[in-house]
This record gives sequence, C-alpha cells and structure tokens, in this order.
Amino acid sequence: MIKIGIVGGTGYTGVELLRILAAHPQAELVAITSRKEDGMPVAEMFPSLRGHVSLAFSAPEKARLDQCDVVFFATPHGVAMAQARELLAAGVKVIDLAADFRLKDTAVFEQWYGMPHSCPDILAEAVYGLPEVNRDAIRAAHVIGLPGCYPTSMQLGFAPLLTQGKPLINESSLIADCKSGVSGAGRKAEVHALLAEASDNFKAYGVKGHRHLPETIQGLEAIAGRPIGLTFVPHLVPMIRGIHSTLYATLLPEARTLDFQALYESHYRDSPFVDVMPAGSHPETRSVRASNMLRLAVHRPGGGDLLVILVVEDNLVKGAAGQGVQCMNLMFGLDETTGLRQVPILP
Amino acid sequence: MIKIGIVGGTGYTGVELLRILAAHPQAELVAITSRKEDGMPVAEMFPSLRGHVSLAFSAPEKARLDQCDVVFFATPHGVAMAQARELLAAGVKVIDLAADFRLKDTAVFEQWYGMPHSCPDILAEAVYGLPEVNRDAIRAAHVIGLPGCYPTSMQLGFAPLLTQGKPLINESSLIADCKSGVSGAGRKAEVHALLAEASDNFKAYGVKGHRHLPETIQGLEAIAGRPIGLTFVPHLVPMIRGIHSTLYATLLPEARTLDFQALYESHYRDSPFVDVMPAGSHPETRSVRASNMLRLAVHRPGGGDLLVILVVEDNLVKGAAGQGVQCMNLMFGLDETTGLRQVPILP
Amino acid sequence: MIKIGIVGGTGYTGVELLRILAAHPQAELVAITSRKEDGMPVAEMFPSLRGHVSLAFSAPEKARLDQCDVVFFATPHGVAMAQARELLAAGVKVIDLAADFRLKDTAVFEQWYGMPHSCPDILAEAVYGLPEVNRDAIRAAHVIGLPGCYPTSMQLGFAPLLTQGKPLINESSLIADCKSGVSGAGRKAEVHALLAEASDNFKAYGVKGHRHLPETIQGLEAIAGRPIGLTFVPHLVPMIRGIHSTLYATLLPEARTLDFQALYESHYRDSPFVDVMPAGSHPETRSVRASNMLRLAVHRPGGGDLLVILVVEDNLVKGAAGQGVQCMNLMFGLDETTGLRQVPILP
Amino acid sequence: MIKIGIVGGTGYTGVELLRILAAHPQAELVAITSRKEDGMPVAEMFPSLRGHVSLAFSAPEKARLDQCDVVFFATPHGVAMAQARELLAAGVKVIDLAADFRLKDTAVFEQWYGMPHSCPDILAEAVYGLPEVNRDAIRAAHVIGLPGCYPTSMQLGFAPLLTQGKPLINESSLIADCKSGVSGAGRKAEVHALLAEASDNFKAYGVKGHRHLPETIQGLEAIAGRPIGLTFVPHLVPMIRGIHSTLYATLLPEARTLDFQALYESHYRDSPFVDVMPAGSHPETRSVRASNMLRLAVHRPGGGDLLVILVVEDNLVKGAAGQGVQCMNLMFGLDETTGLRQVPILP
Repeated sequence: MIKIGIVGGTGYTGVELLRILAAHPQAELVAITSRKEDGMPVAEMFPSLRGHVSLAFSAPEKARLDQCDVVFFATPHGVAMAQARELLAAGVKVIDLAADFRLKDTAVFEQWYGMPHSCPDILAEAVYGLPEVNRDAIRAAHVIGLPGCYPTSMQLGFAPLLTQGKPLINESSLIADCKSGVSGAGRKAEVHALLAEASDNFKAYGVKGHRHLPETIQGLEAIAGRPIGLTFVPHLVPMIRGIHSTLYATLLPEARTLDFQALYESHYRDSPFVDVMPAGSHPETRSVRASNMLRLAVHRPGGGDLLVILVVEDNLVKGAAGQGVQCMNLMFGLDETTGLRQVPILP
Repeated sequence: MIKIGIVGGTGYTGVELLRILAAHPQAELVAITSRKEDGMPVAEMFPSLRGHVSLAFSAPEKARLDQCDVVFFATPHGVAMAQARELLAAGVKVIDLAADFRLKDTAVFEQWYGMPHSCPDILAEAVYGLPEVNRDAIRAAHVIGLPGCYPTSMQLGFAPLLTQGKPLINESSLIADCKSGVSGAGRKAEVHALLAEASDNFKAYGVKGHRHLPETIQGLEAIAGRPIGLTFVPHLVPMIRGIHSTLYATLLPEARTLDFQALYESHYRDSPFVDVMPAGSHPETRSVRASNMLRLAVHRPGGGDLLVILVVEDNLVKGAAGQGVQCMNLMFGLDETTGLRQVPILP
Repeated sequence: MIKIGIVGGTGYTGVELLRILAAHPQAELVAITSRKEDGMPVAEMFPSLRGHVSLAFSAPEKARLDQCDVVFFATPHGVAMAQARELLAAGVKVIDLAADFRLKDTAVFEQWYGMPHSCPDILAEAVYGLPEVNRDAIRAAHVIGLPGCYPTSMQLGFAPLLTQGKPLINESSLIADCKSGVSGAGRKAEVHALLAEASDNFKAYGVKGHRHLPETIQGLEAIAGRPIGLTFVPHLVPMIRGIHSTLYATLLPEARTLDFQALYESHYRDSPFVDVMPAGSHPETRSVRASNMLRLAVHRPGGGDLLVILVVEDNLVKGAAGQGVQCMNLMFGLDETTGLRQVPILP
Repeated sequence: MIKIGIVGGTGYTGVELLRILAAHPQAELVAITSRKEDGMPVAEMFPSLRGHVSLAFSAPEKARLDQCDVVFFATPHGVAMAQARELLAAGVKVIDLAADFRLKDTAVFEQWYGMPHSCPDILAEAVYGLPEVNRDAIRAAHVIGLPGCYPTSMQLGFAPLLTQGKPLINESSLIADCKSGVSGAGRKAEVHALLAEASDNFKAYGVKGHRHLPETIQGLEAIAGRPIGLTFVPHLVPMIRGIHSTLYATLLPEARTLDFQALYESHYRDSPFVDVMPAGSHPETRSVRASNMLRLAVHRPGGGDLLVILVVEDNLVKGAAGQGVQCMNLMFGLDETTGLRQVPILP
C-alpha cells in the first residue's frame, strides 16, 4: 500500500482526491492537513465521505508527512514549493495540483502568479504531469507539477497535430475557445461564482490574459519542438464540472490530404484515458463526468482548411485529481488505470 | 415626481429596486449611497442598467437624502434604524427592506438579530408593509418595515383562513414547508451559495429556528387576533429567484363544508397582486418571475381534513423590492399598481 | 458470476443499472433488449459507457433471456408482468423496476396504472424489494417488485416510528412533502421536463393524487401492522438527481420523552445503506449523488410535538437501480453492499 | 393602435411576442391562432400572462387575420409562405419569425429546410429584418423575414469590420464560436433538451453544418459587398435564454493601427439596441436577459493580429420576438424603441 498524505483537503480538488483515493486499492490515506480545521473529521465537512474516509484534518506540525510515500498538494499556489524540499529530503515524492512546478521559466511564473519562485532547483527537476506526453519521465519523477485543467485539454487536443516532424497546421495562430464549469474556480467564497450570479448566464473572462496561456504555450512548444502562437479565450458555463475546449487550427496546403481521424486514433492508441470518438461525434462534458477520461472528436467543416477539435474532460478529475493519481500510479509502478476506472455519471 | 433615495444598492434587493424604479412613471431616482463604491456609476457594477440608470453611487455624506421624498434601505439589518430618525425629522418617509422595523417586540428582535434596537419609539409607529393586510395603515405611514420574503408568502397564504371570526383550522399546528431560490441569501460571498455547491442539490436549513418564524407568527396573530402555532421548514432550491410555500392546515370539523376556493377568491377580490388560481392548479415560481404577482392555489387532497395551500412569489419583487414600491405607491396616493405591471418572464 | 439480462435499457434507470453492473465484481451482463435499437451498441447511445459496456441492444427474440440468472425490467409499467411467467418457468429470477409487482391489491393497481393485472398469482408471491424492511424475504424471493423512488424515502423515513409495538405518533395524519429532481420523470420527451421549462423553476404536482401514495400507504401499513393516513405532496426540483423528503409526524403525548435520535440509530444499526446523521443535521441530496446511500436526520423544532424527518436519496440509485442491485446481492447470497460502495460525487 | 394577429403562439417566440406586445402602448392584440388549442385562453397555457392577455386561441378560419394591420408568424418553417399571399393581398403586413423569407436563394432554402419555396416572388420583395443593417428598407417593407438568433449576433458582431470600403480583416476565414441557451431549440418535446440531459452539461452540435451558416454568410456578404468565408460552431449551454458569440477575425497588416473600439462605437452610434461596451469588457448574457439589447465588446489579445469580438443577446428577444417588434415599429412609423425599453432582469 502506498502511504499518502494530502496537504489542503478542503477545496474541490482535495475532496476529489479523497473520493478517488478512498476507493483506490493500493492507497492508504494516512494524513490530511489543515491548520484551520485541525481535529475535524473530513467527513464532517464533506458528508459524502461518511463511511469512506475516517481521517480527521490535522495541523501540519502533527501530521507526519515525512513518513508518507507521496504527498499531494491541493493548496493555493506557493504552498508546495515552501514544503517540497523537506519532504524530498525525507524521500517523499511530491505531486502538486497547483502551479508551483508547472512553468519552467521562473520569470514567467513570477509575472503570472505574483510571487517569486523559492526553489528553482527543485523546479528544474520537476516533471510536468501529463502522462500522455511525459509518461516515462513521470515514472522516474520525484516531483510532479500537474497541468492546469484548461492546459490538459488544449495540449491533448492539439498534440497529434504537432508531433509529425514537419508542420501540418499554421502553428503561429492556434485558437482555443474553452468553456469551463464553475468548480474550476475552486471552493472559494466569491460573488461572481454564486449560483445567483453564474446560473442561467454565460460569459467570457480573462480575454486579456490568463495564467493557463503561458503554461499551454510552454507545453505545446515542448511537444512540437517549435514556437507556437495561441489565442486562448476561456468562458464560464453554468454547470458544476466539465471543460469543453473547441480548438481551431488552419491546415497547411501540404496537409490537406491527411486522414486526421486516423492520425488521432493512432496517436492515442496506447493512452487508456484518451478516447478518440468516431468521426462526426460531438462529445459532451457529461460523458466524462466524475471520470478520468478525456474524449475528443476531429472535425473539418465543409471539408475546408480549418480543423476543429472538440475536447471534453472533467476538470476535477482528468484536469486535476485524477491526473494526479494517474501520475502516482506511474510513479509507483502500478498500472496507469488503477483506481481510475469509474464509469462516468450520466445523467 | 417622487424624489427617491436608496441606501445600499449593491445587493439583489437594491438592484431590483433600481430596475423597477427606473421604469416607474412617477419615480425620480436622485441618490444612491455606498461608501465603498463612491463615484462608481451604478451601471458599471450592473451592466443590465446601462442606458436606464445614469446615477453613480455616492458616499452617504454627499448624498442629500434629506431632500428626498422617500428613502429605501436595501441594507444589512441595523442600518435603517441608525438613520431613520434624522430622515423622519426632515420629513422624509422611510421604507426598510431589512428587518429593523418588522418585529414589534424589541426583545424578540434582539434575540434573533443579535443587536439591541436603537429606536423603539420609531418602531412603535412603523407599519408592517404588507398591503393586502395593512393597506390603510400603509397609506398613512411614515416608516415601513417591509416583510421578509418567506413571511409574505406564508401570511398571504394563511390569511383567508384566519379572518373569519371563528377558527376554521387547528391554529396551533400550522405547517409551512417553504422553498426558496438562492437570491434570497443575498449577494454575499458565501461558500454554501456557490453554484458548485448549491446547483444540482436540494436541502433544508434552519429547521431548528429561523428569523422569519417569529415575524410570521407575529403577523398571523395580528391577522387572526388569536395565538398561532407554526412550524416553518425552509429549503434551498437550485434556482435564482422564486419562493414556493406549501402550507398545511388541519380543518376543524365545523369547517368541513366550507367552499375554500370561494373563500380565497372573495378575500383577495380587491388585491391586484394576489392571483387565486383555479381549483386544482399548481402554480409555478416562473409564472411570477420578475413580477410583483403572488399566485396561490387551494387543495384538499382526497377531500380530507388537510388543506394544502400552494403559494408562489418572486422573492426579490413581491418578497422585497416590488412590495416596497407597492407600499410607496400607497404612501404617495398613487394607484397601487403604478410601475408594477410588468409581465412575468417565461421561459 | 451472475448472468444478467436487462429488458429496456434506454431510460435513466436502465443506464444507471448498466453503470452499476459494469463495475460489479460478480455481475456478467449477457443481454440487453430493445426492439427499436436492435444492433446498436449500448455505448453508442450512452457514450459514458464507452470502454465499460461492449454489449449491443438486441431484439427480445434474439436475446436468450431464459439463460440468464436474473433479468431486470427497466421498462414502462406492464412489460414485466407480460414476460415474467416464462422467465420464472425457466428458473430465471425477475427484478422489476416498474410498478407491476408493487401493489398487492390488483384493483388498486388497475385504478392507478390504468391496465388490468395479468398475473395475480405471480404478484402474490412477489416480494417488495425494500431490503431494510424485507431483507429475509428478498433473500428467498424469485420475483421482486422494486419500490418507487418517493416510497423508498418515505417508508425508510417513517419506519422507525411505526415499529415500536404501540403508536408513538398520530398515524392517521402523516405528511410527506417531497421534492424530486427531474430524472424521476424518466427519459421521455415531454415539454414540462425540458430544461427551458423546468430550470429556474419550482412547482408542486399531483397534489390531487399520485401513484406513489397507495404504494407508500401499503408499505407503511405493512410496517406498522395498523392503518395509516398520509398526505403526500410531490414537487419538481430543477436538478437532475435526488429526492429530498420532508416528513412530518405529530407525537402522541406518551412519546414526548423518547430519544428519537437513539431510536433511529438503533433501528438502522445493521443497514449499511441508511445513514442516520448526527442530531441537527440537514442532509443534502448531493451528499448521496450517484450512490446507494440514503441519509436522514431527525428534528423536533422548538422541542414541540411535531417531528420533522429529513430524508435524502439518489432517486436513480437507492430509489431504483441501486436498490435493485442490493436486492440481487441478497437473492444470490452476496454481501448486500457488493458493487455498491461508490463514493458519492461531490461537487 | 396597430391591430395585430399572431399565427402560432404556443412556442417560446410566440409567448415572448405576447409578453412584449401586451405591454406595447400602440399594440392591440386581436387574434392568435392555433387549430389544436382553439378556444383555450392563452393565459391558461401560459399562466404568466394571466391578467395581461385575455385573448383565447382560435382556429385559423375563425380568426379574421385579414382585418389585422400586421400578422406575426411564430410558426414552424413553411407556414408563413403558405399564408402570406392572401394576407398581403388584403393589405396586411407580414413578419415571419421562421426561415421562410430569410434566404434569397430558393435552392439554398430547399437544401437546408427540406421543402420547396412556394412563393419566390414574395421572397424577392421580402426584407431581411435586421434594423441595424436594413433600417430604411424595413420602414418600407410589406414582408419581413426576421433573422435567426445566431445570425443576428454574428452579423452585428462582424458588421463594423466589413463596411469600411476596403477589407480590414481576412474575410475568407472568419470564425464564430457561438453558445446558446436551450430555449433556442424551441418548445418541442425532444429528449436532448430535457433538463436531465442538457443540465450540468456542455456540448457542440451541428459542426458539420447548420442552417444559420448560409443565412449568415448571405447577410455578411450583403453587408460587405464581397465574398465571405465563415466557420460556425454552435454549442448548447445549460441555461434558458441567451446567446454568446465569440467571433474571431484576423487583421490584415494595413489595419493594424486602427482604433477598433472607436470604429465600433461610431458604427453603432445611432442604434439604440446595440451597446458597445467599454474596452476590456466581458459582456454577460444575463445583462440582456429579457431585453432587446445586444451588447458587444472588442478585444485584441496581446495586441496581436487576432480580433476577438464578444457578443451577447437574448435569443428570444433581440434574436426573435423583440427584433420583430422593432421591425414593426419601423414599419408603422413609430420610434424604434416603442414598447422595447424593458430593463434586463438581473439576477
């Protein structure tokens, strides 16, 4: 059994981690920290966990995280980098669901997250936790920076187009029109996320700039090995879970005859959590609700030169906690799908 | 034109007041205060008001509220009673949408609202702003304490049963099972009201006790002239606006032969904002959405001794801002319906 | 492995059965029938099942249901009773999610379901599939009539009050004010269940009479061994899954000193799917979303004589498919919880 | 007073027309037809209209539509063209909310709507009812083909870029990523529009082709006077009302220095129902809920060559019934805004 600690389990990615790990056959939850909730049983805050999680929150100094095999950080940005060194020194692996170990360039990190990076050396050895791209590196990693929810969908949606040696699309003008349920904003008390504000409503936000843009560009450039230009427009959907990314790419003339359906199917043949749907499909977010699956479909409207990729994922699972467990499985030599085979909830 | 000031216009009852008054043919909005938002155009906070409200928020000391004809308080509890005396002295009428002038017994007020009452003398002359019960007193009033949203629906639902001279129902064991949309909780940043918490979910709350219970009992006892016993169970519905109250009353044997449909229709014959629907109807909250109408239907399942009254209202209109304007109309000698004839929004 | 057939898998209870059985360690799905969809892979209709269910729908005559160990009917009322005799003769157990084997009195069945009962003899031996009440009978049953979704919540909510030898409450005037998500209406194209009709809306329905009333009275009378009077008012909540029943019972004077919290805890001590929450709790429907758990809390507002029981369940799981699998487990000698330990999905 | 007839008032655009016209100071509703509902008071089907609309549905042969000044068709495609000739002959103006008079090319009409066009001569004189583009022609029109909901938002969003004499953008590769509430699908009983299907879900649809594509291209080409290439991807949002169109256009090098904010503001200076929001805004659909206003904002992320236009409208008002009344006002010499000044409903 893998001994697991969680730092910060009071948000949505935290409770989702608990839901998944409580049913994971190789996981043993040994500690979950929260200074504010010290002593409160987790299931008191989240009655959905009654009968499944008997652990109580404990103050950080009481939780012997250094005796865990792996510690997940489901915390605000900045917490993981403050604690990682000590844990790594104790031989504990670290998986951060926040942004501390995502951006390789500390100047970019500081620009977008408004704080200096406190451990560039650890950042340098951290692996970006996107298994479909970095599977082998993740197996060997000690520190994982898990991708953001939007970046996961954008990178997995564009990746097959970028890994063919020569460019197939105009790589300087990609467009990602993304739509997310409100749990993506976290379990924070904010007026704009109230049901009375966000329900029966739709809007774009962050068009001027969003933290997930530099992360996605970094990821796409790593995949392609070439510079990438991307416009990213996020929108808020009045639903709880789910991301739908509608991706646009302009074909280069020399790629017009390619079979893109075959290209995608081939690219993801060995990825159990990416489902390339039949040509002509319109994946729905609910088809992956509460599961680690990402589904996508490739369209070429009117047979023209614009490729439209539709990608759906559950932002809390494949976009966060589930992807974290997928990485953990790889890091501990388990089958990638262990504990992650839940059937999506529909309706 | 009636010169109108609003204290606190950044919450839901405030913006609803603005929406109604902006289209009221006799209303002239002259000031709206908010210390925090001093100088910000109202329509910048609420783009829905662009082109309809040109006023900006102003700090209280700059807003010459004493030159208004009437001032509405759409504020937290306790604000109106702190400012009422000065306004009244200047000849300004006061309409409070909060609870400062609802409960006649200051001890009960202090128990439920956690603060002493600072002006019992003004409270003594304040009129409870429920026009269908207190129409004449409202016409003559200088200070109005507007009913809460739940109490409006409960009182108007039970009233016809309590005004017949002798009891028709077991008045010691009334039950009100009420359901409210989340805007009833106000425009406050609170975790439980987030879309990701409250959507696709249903729960009761405050079963142990709720501020609207003493207010409703006070109101029902005033209507009946006799003691009343009431159990009130509020629930939260994943919708923005609307209250549905399901009321239960046990018939006394001597009332078994009464025609309750006729009783209700007769009782509300002259009340333009209470619609007694045909027998057998199931009123929906959306049938009154964004309007000042309250609809109700009277049922007697299986012809037995339990009367079931279904009542719907828009909590922000008939349950708050609209009722305030209805009172204002009466206080200034206008037709009760002036500016309040909007057709409900469906779908 | 239990060989399982499903008749009618295109509705919500059908797809929920598939979701649960696909992950059940002892279940082997061998056939699913639908004349209309003959040949279509189940996962084509429900992409959420891609990778989990490889079966295709087949016309009834092709599906060798007589070679199954058990057949579930997730069909309109009337289908199960037409096919049960043949299956039973072949030694196949039958679990009906519709109403064919719920009401013991065929005259009552005909009154509420508008069709004659075609096999009263099978009805006579059918067991009502509410494990917390009929566990032993279910173990030995060949035919199960599964309770309706509302009746499950009402019976389990009232049961502890009715099994104490002598009456504790006024058993002639129980009230159940119930609220259901719209999936309870099934996957049928009906205007009133459209998102544009049912969303941001709340209403009661069927106050005059509802099929679940006679079923619940029959069940409560069987539990109590005495006549019961019940008023049942169902309401429609703008959410997908979940039932919240608010139950009211008037204490008899001799029961005033009882510890009802202890009574409920004791009653359900050995029922793994009933969670009696701590005193003062307000269970939420989402706390049981997509799980077979039913949670309840006992309240006595103001310490008075009215008991208020709050009950939540997922109408598609404990109110339908999950309860069916719970019965199947008992009928085949498995632990009651086999395949039913999924953690509820929150948020 | 303008005497008004409505053919087909049982759908969402019909009930919205009734809501608007009931409060229109110059409108007199004289007839509303529905063969199926002959004799039923309109307010019985839509209780929201109780007290506002006293008309009953009548069979077409009883309704003297030829005595109206104008007849609105809120019907399925094909109805208006079957009845227009007779009405026009009687001097009655016709406003069609369906597609019969939108597409100028009858071959394109037949391809997308699956029926031959029965009156090409009337089509030839019909005016496309988009006042911000065709104001003068509408004033003189006898027959109006109202734009679809999506096309209204796309055309008004792109128009200022296309009317500057020479091209500013790459006009062959426009992209419109559009999101609509479900009322856009109409009040038809269809499984995919059930709350239990469409709620808490997001998906694209019709990526292969959608009827609003040829209509929009026709409109944009008429505006530009040049060929246009457009990719249109519609999506379904779990909300009742509202369309949000996110439009993408690539700047030509010679247009890089233009002030697009000023361009848009200038273009719509005299259009009371188009609100160009301040630079950097993110218009929300609720900011126009139940109103005839369309709001838009112009973005240029990172100062690059991709222009992003965010457009919101209420699909039932500016996208249908409200635009119809706006056209009627123009056709009868009224101020364009008569009866259309309702304040949007927020929250």
